[in-house]
Formats: sequence, C-alpha cells, structure tokens
Amino acid sequence: VRVACLPDVHAQRLVGDVPGVETIVWNGSEQRPPRLECTEFLVGSYTTGPLDAGSFALMPQLTVLQLISAGVDSWLPALPAGITVCNGRGVHGQSTAEIAVTLLLSQVRSIPRFVRQQAAGMWVPGARDGIAEKNVLMVGAGDIGTRVSATLQTMGATVTLMGRTARDGVVGLDELPALLPTQDAVVLAVPLTEQTRGMVDSGFLAAMKDRAVLVNVGRGPTVVTEALYPDLRSGRLTVALDVVDPEPLPSEHPLWRTPNVLLTPHVGGGTEGWDRRGYQLVREQLERWATGQPLENVVISA
Amino acid sequence: VRVACLPDVHAQRLVGDVPGVETIVWNGSEQRPPRLECTEFLVGSYTTGPLDAGSFALMPQLTVLQLISAGVDSWLPALPAGITVCNGRGVHGQSTAEIAVTLLLSQVRSIPRFVRQQAAGMWVPGARDGIAEKNVLMVGAGDIGTRVSATLQTMGATVTLMGRTARDGVVGLDELPALLPTQDAVVLAVPLTEQTRGMVDSGFLAAMKDRAVLVNVGRGPTVVTEALYPDLRSGRLTVALDVVDPEPLPSEHPLWRTPNVLLTPHVGGGTEGWDRRGYQLVREQLERWATGQPLENVVISA
Repeated sequence: VRVACLPDVHAQRLVGDVPGVETIVWNGSEQRPPRLECTEFLVGSYTTGPLDAGSFALMPQLTVLQLISAGVDSWLPALPAGITVCNGRGVHGQSTAEIAVTLLLSQVRSIPRFVRQQAAGMWVPGARDGIAEKNVLMVGAGDIGTRVSATLQTMGATVTLMGRTARDGVVGLDELPALLPTQDAVVLAVPLTEQTRGMVDSGFLAAMKDRAVLVNVGRGPTVVTEALYPDLRSGRLTVALDVVDPEPLPSEHPLWRTPNVLLTPHVGGGTEGWDRRGYQLVREQLERWATGQPLENVVISA
Repeated sequence: VRVACLPDVHAQRLVGDVPGVETIVWNGSEQRPPRLECTEFLVGSYTTGPLDAGSFALMPQLTVLQLISAGVDSWLPALPAGITVCNGRGVHGQSTAEIAVTLLLSQVRSIPRFVRQQAAGMWVPGARDGIAEKNVLMVGAGDIGTRVSATLQTMGATVTLMGRTARDGVVGLDELPALLPTQDAVVLAVPLTEQTRGMVDSGFLAAMKDRAVLVNVGRGPTVVTEALYPDLRSGRLTVALDVVDPEPLPSEHPLWRTPNVLLTPHVGGGTEGWDRRGYQLVREQLERWATGQPLENVVISA
C-alpha cells in the first residue's frame, strides 16, 4: 500500500477509498501524521497555499505533486527536483472563464461607472459600446481560453485564440505584434512562466488599439503594473484585472484609485462545487497512479 | 410615388433610394415638410420618442408605423386606429441580450460590491457564486431571450425559455408558478402588454428561490417597483434592472439606494451600429411595401 497525502479531512472524504492507496492528511502543520515520511503522492491545498522547503524535506519519497489550480507557479520555488507536477486543469476553468467574460462585459458596458452613478442617484444614459462585432484576442488557448472564446463567439464577437505555438484553430504567440493593433479587447489567461512574466509591458500596451480593453485572469505578474498607469490615466485604455502584481494589493497601492480600471480580488476560481470537481480529479489521478497508468494534467515531468 | 416619412436626414441617407417611394424627413417639429399630408408609411425616431396625437393628425393617409425598437408600447397611446405597427426586432437584440448577460453575471459575481471595495482600497476575496450549473428562467422567447439563452447555455447554465404560449423548446407562461421556486435566476425580456404589466408582484417574488437573482431588460412596468423592497432589504433576493418604473428614475427615488440592486439607465439597446442595422431593416420593409409584399415584424395588424 502506497501513501498519498491530502490537505484535509474534507478532501479525504471526497476522494474516498482508492484500492492500493492509503491516504493520510497533512497541510504543513506542526502535528505530523504517522507515515508522513512514506508519502509518494502529495495533493496541495487550494486554499492555504504552497508548502515550504522544510515541509517537503519531511517527504523524501515524494514523486508526484497534484495541485487543484490551473496555475502551479507558487509551488515551484520550494519544490525539490525530480517531482512530477500535475495541475487542476478543468476544475476552475468554467468559473475563471466566467470571471473573464464578466470583467470584459462589465468594462465594455460601463458597469463600474453605473455603480458609481447609482450611489449618487444619477440617471445618465448613453453607453454606445458592446462586444458584438468586436475583435477579441484570447491569449491562452487552454481550458479557460477555449471557454471564453466559445462564449464571446456566441455573443457575436470575432475571437482569435492564441497559444504558445500555432495549431489548428490557434495562432502562435509570435503573431502578437501583428494582431495587437487590430484588437478591441485582449484577454489574458496564461500560466506564469519565464516567457509570460512581464509580457504585457509598455511596448505591448503601446501596440494596443485606442479604447481597447485588457483583461487578466491568469497571473498578476504577466502584466507590468506600473506600465499601465499612463494609458489608464489618459483614458486611452481600460483594464479589468482579477489578478494583479502584487497580491493581495495593499490598500495604499495607487492602482486602486487609478481611473479606467476594474479590480476583483482573485476570485476567478473557487466557485461552488470546485471541491467536488477537484477531488474527483484527484481520485481519478490516484486510481491511475495506483494501477500504473500515465497521469493526466502533467505540467512538469520529472 | 408613395410617401414615406423618416425621422432625420441620417436615416434618409442610410435608407437610400427605394423605387416607387419618395422619402421625406420629419420628426414632429414645427417645420413641416411638403407632402407630409401624403405620408402613408412613418418611421418613428428611436432617439426622440413617440409623436403626439396632433402630429398623427397631420398624416391622414398613414397606414404603417415602423419602429426601430423591440418595444412599441410608448407609441400606442397617441396612435390613431387602423394603423399597422411593425417593430425593430433584431436591431437591438444582440445589444439587449448582452446587457442582460452583463447584468446577470455582474450580480452573480458581485461586481458592484467589488467596485465599492475598490474605491475603499479593500482586497476582500471570497465570492462563491457562479452561473455554471445554475437554473435560469428566461421569460421572453423572442430575439433577445433566444440570444441570452444561447450565451448562458454556453457558460454551463441550464436555461428554460418561456414564451406566451408553449411551443417546441419554449414553455408557456402558465408554467411560471411551478418553475419559479427552482430557478437561481429569472431574466425578463417581455414586451409591455396588459398581460405583462405588473407581472412581477409580491406573489411572483415570494415564489422565487432564496438568493435568486432577478434581471429586467424589457420594460420597467413589468415589475412592481415597490414590491421589490422587502426582499432587497432582507437580502433574500438580488436584482439588476436596465429598465425601471418610473423612467428616468428621479434622483430622490429610494430604489437608487436600496441594497442588492444594480441599476443601469436603460442602455440595453443603441450600441454602435444600431442605426445601420435599423435603417437596413427600414429599407427592406419599404421595398416590401412598395412592391406589395407582406411586411415583416408586424406586432399590431390594422
């Protein structure tokens, strides 16, 4: 019997019994469960964040880290070498695609302005923009990007799906310079990697069309926060960010009160049912692992 | 040559020449064009509202009133008998469906709360709701309702489309009492008629599920404004209204500052391109009229 470590008893209950696997529960706390040192398969907590190097040192047999988020970046700094990392592709995809669409539509249809005018009792019609017949560049062609694209196309937008490399129905990142000037909206749902960190800088923003909308639901550091100020203050661009750099955004940070920005506090994932979907995925992965089948959602191969 | 009256020269330019039809321009002003009294086909202004009975009296030959809005109710009180009324079905459908989806998603994903917290520099994560896997009742199975339904289904919601009478894929209004208690959201896009005026009253609201969201993008008087207060103040229901009764909402009206309501000032239609789409429809109608073919979009038959 091989040992898999889950973050809490709720997870253990949702995963249930998996033949050939003993599940233990630990989340980095002082109180260590028996057989922790035998852990070969670790499921990271979605809610309490990454373990530190000292915690990983207590699991010398570890070969697989399974996460329940699409992004894995925050777990990597403390991770020992030689461990396969699987992500939670699909668990939060629908929810994150939904916040992307919500943020884009909110900015296009001026919802933040109407919320402020409502507080002042002001009836001021006149908003001419819509998403129909607009060009939207969806950067990130994974689960989230594919869902956003499908929804916006239903609403009459023309969506270009962009991935790391070109494939059927997906243009490659190398087409960014050619495409940016023609897009009414750019939605970012890419993982944080060396390639994407700081990708949206002054040059990227300068290439965007006047009055375009930028939405980020991936990882904050994909966008250079300071680079946003000139275009937001002049009103040339509008942005909506569910993820920012830094996070959480300190209350004195100037971005909070910059015009033409809509901020939500990283609430893309985690909507009702994420735990059910997440631990169903974990169960399937443990079954594969216990029976020697290849794992799915591998993002880093040991 | 028969005379058709358009509301302005921009409309006249977009409609262009139609064989067998002379177009004149008038919008109820003191300055009356030659041949006004010969007008048989009148196109109502989308932006300046209905003509009064005195204006209609100047067009004794009138047989057709073509509007560029989906709703025709505001033109009816002053309209002489015996005139066929056609609406602008399709012109604003995409735009109005878009505001319905925007309002619903904004409330479900707490955008108004985040806008207020942004102003205070407050990063407060934790919003568990989403539209995926929810039940949505779309009341109104016309152009707008069909579009809203398609979009929400793409986002993973289960949508029931409700029309005046049951037909394939559409349940009838008589199923309202049975359906209301099971719906997480109810979206209204129905014309204002004797049947729909005051339809959403205390009884309707009481039948709605706890924590449900009500959205109205049709006509304000479909909802009894005063009936909303108890459930909004208790937080049992949440609403988002692009149309209200009265309109414009006076700045001292209590609805502005009632909790759990998101208000937009009747901005569902009129997004970019409405005039191009609207006067293309008018052109096609004039061509049908001039060649003796039946008109489309007839909502009141003479």
